[in-house]
This record gives sequence, C-alpha cells and structure tokens, in this order.
Amino acid sequence: MAKKITIRDLASAAGVSVTTVSQILNGKGNRFSKATQEKVLHLRDELGYVPDFNARNLILRSSKTIGVLVPNLNNPFFSTFIHGVDSTARKEGFIALVFGANHEEDLERFYLRQLMERSVDGFIIASASITAKTIDDLLKPWHAPYVLFDQNGNRAGDRLEVDDYQGGRQAAEYLAKMGHQKIVMLHPTNPTANVNNRLKGFTDGLHDAGIDFDPQQDIVSAELTKIGGYDQTDAVLAKHPTAVFSANDEMAIGLMRGLHEKGLSIPDDISVMGYDNIDFDEYVSPKLTTIEQPMHQIGEEATNMLIKRVQNPEMDLQTVHLPVKLVTRDSVKNLKK
Amino acid sequence: MAKKITIRDLASAAGVSVTTVSQILNGKGNRFSKATQEKVLHLRDELGYVPDFNARNLILRSSKTIGVLVPNLNNPFFSTFIHGVDSTARKEGFIALVFGANHEEDLERFYLRQLMERSVDGFIIASASITAKTIDDLLKPWHAPYVLFDQNGNRAGDRLEVDDYQGGRQAAEYLAKMGHQKIVMLHPTNPTANVNNRLKGFTDGLHDAGIDFDPQQDIVSAELTKIGGYDQTDAVLAKHPTAVFSANDEMAIGLMRGLHEKGLSIPDDISVMGYDNIDFDEYVSPKLTTIEQPMHQIGEEATNMLIKRVQNPEMDLQTVHLPVKLVTRDSVKNLKK
Repeated sequence: MAKKITIRDLASAAGVSVTTVSQILNGKGNRFSKATQEKVLHLRDELGYVPDFNARNLILRSSKTIGVLVPNLNNPFFSTFIHGVDSTARKEGFIALVFGANHEEDLERFYLRQLMERSVDGFIIASASITAKTIDDLLKPWHAPYVLFDQNGNRAGDRLEVDDYQGGRQAAEYLAKMGHQKIVMLHPTNPTANVNNRLKGFTDGLHDAGIDFDPQQDIVSAELTKIGGYDQTDAVLAKHPTAVFSANDEMAIGLMRGLHEKGLSIPDDISVMGYDNIDFDEYVSPKLTTIEQPMHQIGEEATNMLIKRVQNPEMDLQTVHLPVKLVTRDSVKNLKK
Repeated sequence: MAKKITIRDLASAAGVSVTTVSQILNGKGNRFSKATQEKVLHLRDELGYVPDFNARNLILRSSKTIGVLVPNLNNPFFSTFIHGVDSTARKEGFIALVFGANHEEDLERFYLRQLMERSVDGFIIASASITAKTIDDLLKPWHAPYVLFDQNGNRAGDRLEVDDYQGGRQAAEYLAKMGHQKIVMLHPTNPTANVNNRLKGFTDGLHDAGIDFDPQQDIVSAELTKIGGYDQTDAVLAKHPTAVFSANDEMAIGLMRGLHEKGLSIPDDISVMGYDNIDFDEYVSPKLTTIEQPMHQIGEEATNMLIKRVQNPEMDLQTVHLPVKLVTRDSVKNLKK
C-alpha cells in the first residue's frame, strides 16, 4: 500500500512551511501571495492530499458531525425527515450520521455509544424506545446536546413540538363530519408520547362531537408497520367499524391490503384514514386521506435547533412549534350523502 | 460544560495504572485479578468513561467504519439493502455510515470526501452517477478498497454481480408467454450499467420469442422514481402497448397511478410489470408482478466482500454472483386465455 500524502509532504513539495499550508487549506491564506496560495491548492489536488480528520478532530474538539437515530429507514416518513436533516446540516457545514435502530433498545444504545465514541457534536433522536431519562444517563459523560423528536414533553430542554393532539382532533372532527359513529383506532403496541397525544386528541374530538369512543374497547393494537396493520385486519373487522383511524399511514396501507383481500371495497364498505402523509398515500387505491406532518421541515428545524445549541451551549431554551393539517383524498366515505 | 472523564481519571479512581485500565477495557485483562477487572469495569460505568475514538483511531489506523453511498434513501430497495449492510457490518465489528446522494454528482463527491476525511476503511458505492474511473481517481489518495454495486463490469476488482441480463430475459419470456406482442419498456433517463443489462436481456428475450421490440422506438425514458413513472403515463399510452415492463418497481407503481387516474383497469386494459420486488408491491392494487432482486443479500455480500478486502488487501480477487427471480402477482393479464 503506497504511503499516504501528509501535510509535511505537501509543504515540502510547495517549498513553504507546514503552517503556511495549513492556513491556506483552512481558508486563512489571505496574507500569502496569490501565487503561493494557488501553488498549494494545485499541489493538494495533484498529490491527492486529504486532511486527517481524526487528527484535526483531536485539535478542534468538534467533529462537525451530528448523530441521528431513527427507528425505521424503511418508513418513507423517516427518509423524508432525514433528507431535511441532511440538507440543513450540510448548509451549516455539518455532516449527519444516520442509524436505523428498528425500535430495538439494545441497538439504540449500541448506536448511541458508537456515535459518542466518534465525538459527534450532538444528537437528534427520533422515536427512540429507550426513555429520555436513559438517554440522559447514557449521554451525560459526553456532555453533548440532543433534540428528542416524538417524545415531546418528557423533559426540560429544547423542544420541537409537532401538534399531535390537534392532529388527532382534526381526524376525529373530519370523521364525525362525514357521519361516522362507529370508529376504531389502530394504535401501536408500544406508543411513544407523541402518538398517545394523537389518541388523546382523537378521543376528545369524538367526545365533543357526541360520538362514543372508549380507548379500552375501540383500539386495536398493531406493530407500527404495513405488515403490522395488515395482520390486524380480522381484529379490526371484528369490531364492525364504519371507519378506522390509523396512527400512521403505513399501518393504514397495510390494513387496506387486508381489507381488499377480504373482498371489501374502500370506502364503500369501510373508510380508512391515516397519519403522516407519506408519498405512497397517492399510489394506493383509493388514495389515502390523512393528517399531514411536515416531515421535511421537522428534520430541518430539529437540525437548526441542535446546531444552534452546539454553537452556543448557554443560550436560552428554544421552542419550535409545527402544525399539522388534514389532507382529504378518497378513502373516507361521506355517510351523510 | 463539565470535564470529560479520561482514562487517567479512571485509572486513578481504580488505583491502578493507565495500562492496566486500557488492557482490561480492550478485553485483554486476563492477567489481572477478577476483582481488579470488575472494579475497573464498574468504575467505567459509574464515572461514565467513553474511549476517545479519534485518539484510538490515530493509533490503530483503522476506524472500523465503512462508508456507504446510495442514490435514494426514499426507495425501499435501498433501505432493505442498507439493512443488509448494517447487520453484516455490526456482526464483524464495523459500523456503516450511509449517505444518500440523490444521483447528484457533486453531492456524491462531497460525501466521498467527507468519508475519506473520517478515515473509513472502505466504501460500498451503489448506483453512483460518477464513473468508476472518477471514483478511482478520487479515492486513490486514501488507498481504501471499495465495492461498486450497480456498475458491474466497469473495472477490474472485486465483483458483486447480480444477474440483470437474466432478469430482463425472464421478464421478456413471461410477457411473451402471457401472449403480449406490443410491449413498451420504461427505462431511466441516465441508466447505470446494470439497468442497461436488463434492457439487453429484455430485448434479446423478446426477439428470441419472435416479438418486435426496437429500443429506439419502444422505450419511454423516465426519472427512476414513482413520480417519474407517473409523469410518463401519456407517453406510454401514446405507444398503445398491451404491456409495460418498468426498469424498477417505483416507476411501475407511478405508472399504475397514472393509468388509474385515466380510468384504465390494470391488467384488463393494460398490463404492468416491475423490477426489484420492494415491499410496497403487495400493497398496491393490483399487486405488482416483478423480478425480484435479493436486496438484503446484496447488502450482506457487498459488506462481507469489502471487510475481507480491508482485512486482507493482498487476497485474490473475489467474485460473488447473485440470481434474480420472477415473482408473479396480479398486474399482468394472460391474453391467451
């Protein structure tokens, strides 16, 4: 294996000092002649010099890196979220390292530890199965800030709030307006705090509209995936609802597959409503009515908040509030017509 | 910000030398008493000591990290691929850093450079828009091995081959068997080498079955996404095919949406066939007939090959060959019935 080009090699080739090379490469070369600057930059490319990140990192004490933990790369919700994180991080000169931990607590701990060892400047943790307290305990040695998403309200700190309660209410109000009285909710088996807020808003909204809804009776629990929703088709049908509200689109799309396989027509036989507004909603038949979360913006805002905190650890607590909105398509029937 | 716990702090708290701590933490503590070993491990957790990866990295000259570049995190094909990479890497004590570059050449270069600076041990590069030669030039200074996926045959080196030619042939043979004579292929605007192999196999298969197919006439070009397929609905219909073979499932699913919006019935009015076998294929109506690529296994094998090469740079060239297979569902009509 050939020897790697060092900054010393580059300095000696250019006939200048290591300090000069270092300043020019770090964009602080104004005090040197244009010719010197160009010579160094040209030789860098010609010799193929790449700065050693680990050495630089030890000196700067910042890796310009944020760690991102999501449950499931296979859910389009999170790929859009990651796109928001990525593009914002790059704009600010940071790199986002993303890991999918599949709701496995051991894996979440493993990745957090790996990220700590790699000296990330901070963390964005979405939908973790481990609690905020455990995360606090784990990350304390590293003194790195983090933004939790999907566990609103569990701790003091910077807060990114998406209006889950209101999202649940909007779903309830829409189904009530369409004349539905007998409604089932598909809810995840181990709900995070934000999903429970959706349920609370949904329950309150139905009650305000005078519709019976008992979370003990009218919820079907499912894994938060397409196959999870699909697997609960029989359990949903056993409750004879006219409409089903699913805590995310993936479960709703899985349920739709199950209903089709039973020969049922959506929305004529049964209405289905989702949550998230992933892009696949427009590619299933019928197109899925849902509550839209601003996924890309959530990624952007979480990243902005984290980077501000990294750059200014003593600043006041930040709060960002993001709204949700109803998106009506073709999967809910108007029973009043 | 409180001070980070160092190995010195830990040694002094345990009343042993730094070398002792280091050996115990690196799993080489057998020559010390059980009590000493337990004391050090206990204090590590209690004090929250985390080894400094960057310092260790400078010493070991290996980061136990592989860099992974994919075009599109939003395509389920790549999230399954990444899952295969991730789990295999972890088994071997490596971590995979994954970046989606959206087929943008500048972004691909940016991430490759970032990964080089982070001293990754090697790279898996899937469906890059930059050529193998450019990648070679870029990575040469770092002397790190890489595995290219989706650019089979472009260079000497370790080869992971998926049988794209055969996949194209299988699609052709199936459509011919179902009695289709007038067939259009949806092909990406900037095809990678592997997708062109699919086209070649498809063309040869149709010709062998005595069916006219002229790549100049019978191809519709599209962006390799759902919306890309959707946008070409009119262009496809203008050619009046009885069946469409799409170079990936996402474009096929997009086209299905477009056909539904025109009031056409699949497969009664027109048949659609995809490529990849992403999980969404079973959630669209009708379920999509396709050619399955072993996505998870591709991720596993690419990772195994790369890690073997990292650990043994002088070993003989590796070749791994992975098959594809036809998966019949409900989106292709049998015209012979």
